[in-house]
Amino acid sequence: MSTPAPHPFDQALELQPQPGQGLWRGATSPAYGNMVGPFGGVTAATLLQAVLLDPQRQGEPLALTVNYAGPIADGPFDVQVTLARSNRSTQHWLVQMRQGEATVATATAVLATRRETWSAVETGFPPAPPASGLDRLLPLARARWTSAYDMRFVKGGLLSQASRPVGENADSVSLQWVRDEPPRALDFPALAALCDVFFPRLFVRRPAWVPIGTVSFTVYFHADGAALARIGQQHLLGHARAHQFSKGFFDQAAEMWGPDGELLAVTHQIVYYKE
Amino acid sequence: MSTPAPHPFDQALELQPQPGQGLWRGATSPAYGNMVGPFGGVTAATLLQAVLLDPQRQGEPLALTVNYAGPIADGPFDVQVTLARSNRSTQHWLVQMRQGEATVATATAVLATRRETWSAVETGFPPAPPASGLDRLLPLARARWTSAYDMRFVKGGLLSQASRPVGENADSVSLQWVRDEPPRALDFPALAALCDVFFPRLFVRRPAWVPIGTVSFTVYFHADGAALARIGQQHLLGHARAHQFSKGFFDQAAEMWGPDGELLAVTHQIVYYKE
Repeated sequence: MSTPAPHPFDQALELQPQPGQGLWRGATSPAYGNMVGPFGGVTAATLLQAVLLDPQRQGEPLALTVNYAGPIADGPFDVQVTLARSNRSTQHWLVQMRQGEATVATATAVLATRRETWSAVETGFPPAPPASGLDRLLPLARARWTSAYDMRFVKGGLLSQASRPVGENADSVSLQWVRDEPPRALDFPALAALCDVFFPRLFVRRPAWVPIGTVSFTVYFHADGAALARIGQQHLLGHARAHQFSKGFFDQAAEMWGPDGELLAVTHQIVYYKE
Repeated sequence: MSTPAPHPFDQALELQPQPGQGLWRGATSPAYGNMVGPFGGVTAATLLQAVLLDPQRQGEPLALTVNYAGPIADGPFDVQVTLARSNRSTQHWLVQMRQGEATVATATAVLATRRETWSAVETGFPPAPPASGLDRLLPLARARWTSAYDMRFVKGGLLSQASRPVGENADSVSLQWVRDEPPRALDFPALAALCDVFFPRLFVRRPAWVPIGTVSFTVYFHADGAALARIGQQHLLGHARAHQFSKGFFDQAAEMWGPDGELLAVTHQIVYYKE
């Protein structure tokens, strides 16, 4: 009997412990390649994974901020995690990703133990037809990582660029279903990566490709591990928009929902663009 | 002739260089005291200030994330800044704040040099009557820092608690004018602090005080220094809301606008609450 091959996402997140506390070695995965370097979502997931693998780890992810400090070359990288503070119900971690002597990413992660409290949702689950009735976006040849996700757009996809008149869209709002392809049970690293699957808001707003790159990316996790396990392999509904594009930087704000209307995460990023 | 005393905000941000690269010593300011420890906005501003004072600093603030790792005692603290990566137009900084051996806050800051590009705003300036026609919120005795801000609520203040029936509000949305009190010309540290002046969304939604504390706080700066200088001492318009309150944590998303409708910053935080 043969062991089934691990999912490409799990292969991409493989980390080997190195001599020295909190030091890990990984490598970029061709399956999650972007136009230049790796898909940022998998980088974020890898840095979170290094925290989750640490024997001192307590609790589940609450907040993750990843700063993309420089280009990540295809090939091996090192991840150093440091526990800055451990409290009764929260932990604060510092993470650095290096290639050779160069820091290519920094991150902070907060883990927390959740308890039952008064709860309320203020944001409405956005109306959307079910994923099963929509066509999957054809993967983009120039961004290999798009083959690793099943994305189905309700609004604000790239496909419409070919069919619409050249000019600006009225806004950069996207509403889309998304899951790993092939399907994979949802967990925190996968959700972190899914929070970065939105195409750059600039490309939704303007039908022109220019150099862009995420500078800083934050995820606040609203769901616990049990809630993620209940979602399993189902599509998530992502809703993204920008507040402003100005002087070389735009922001993005997004929510990630479970198919039954549970808010799983909110996520923000600020992105460089060239012109 | 006597020199005028510095503004209390500048006093609160005073940092003395210590032996060792990137090491500074400061102290909490009674003028910005909170119910327990200092107002988190001034802590964030202080950590940003330590980066801005560094002789290696290039560019202006683009992104700031502060993680409140543990209680900050009234008194002195040390701030260590490290330049993790310097690129042609961006710098990535790591910051740790310590009291004795304990890390009480961590932060990452991205500085950037901005250039003119295609620009667009997608979020509308929220309709609001001018600050001059609204009453200032009376400072709260239990939170000394509220004396250091002139806050005028259009919606979602705490004052309405006394007059409304006991029960939940329909939402936690606040719209409020705010500036330093006494007035002070706007700069990046002041804007970082102003991004944290919103009362906890939980207290706007529910008329009950429970222990709360910000865990992680992020600011994306959309304005450059010249734009902040043009604002000067005028009120800013802040617009804040929550997406979800669940299992001991709620989030907050907010925009900070100049009085003429310029989006200066977007800011997010995730906050612990006890019940």
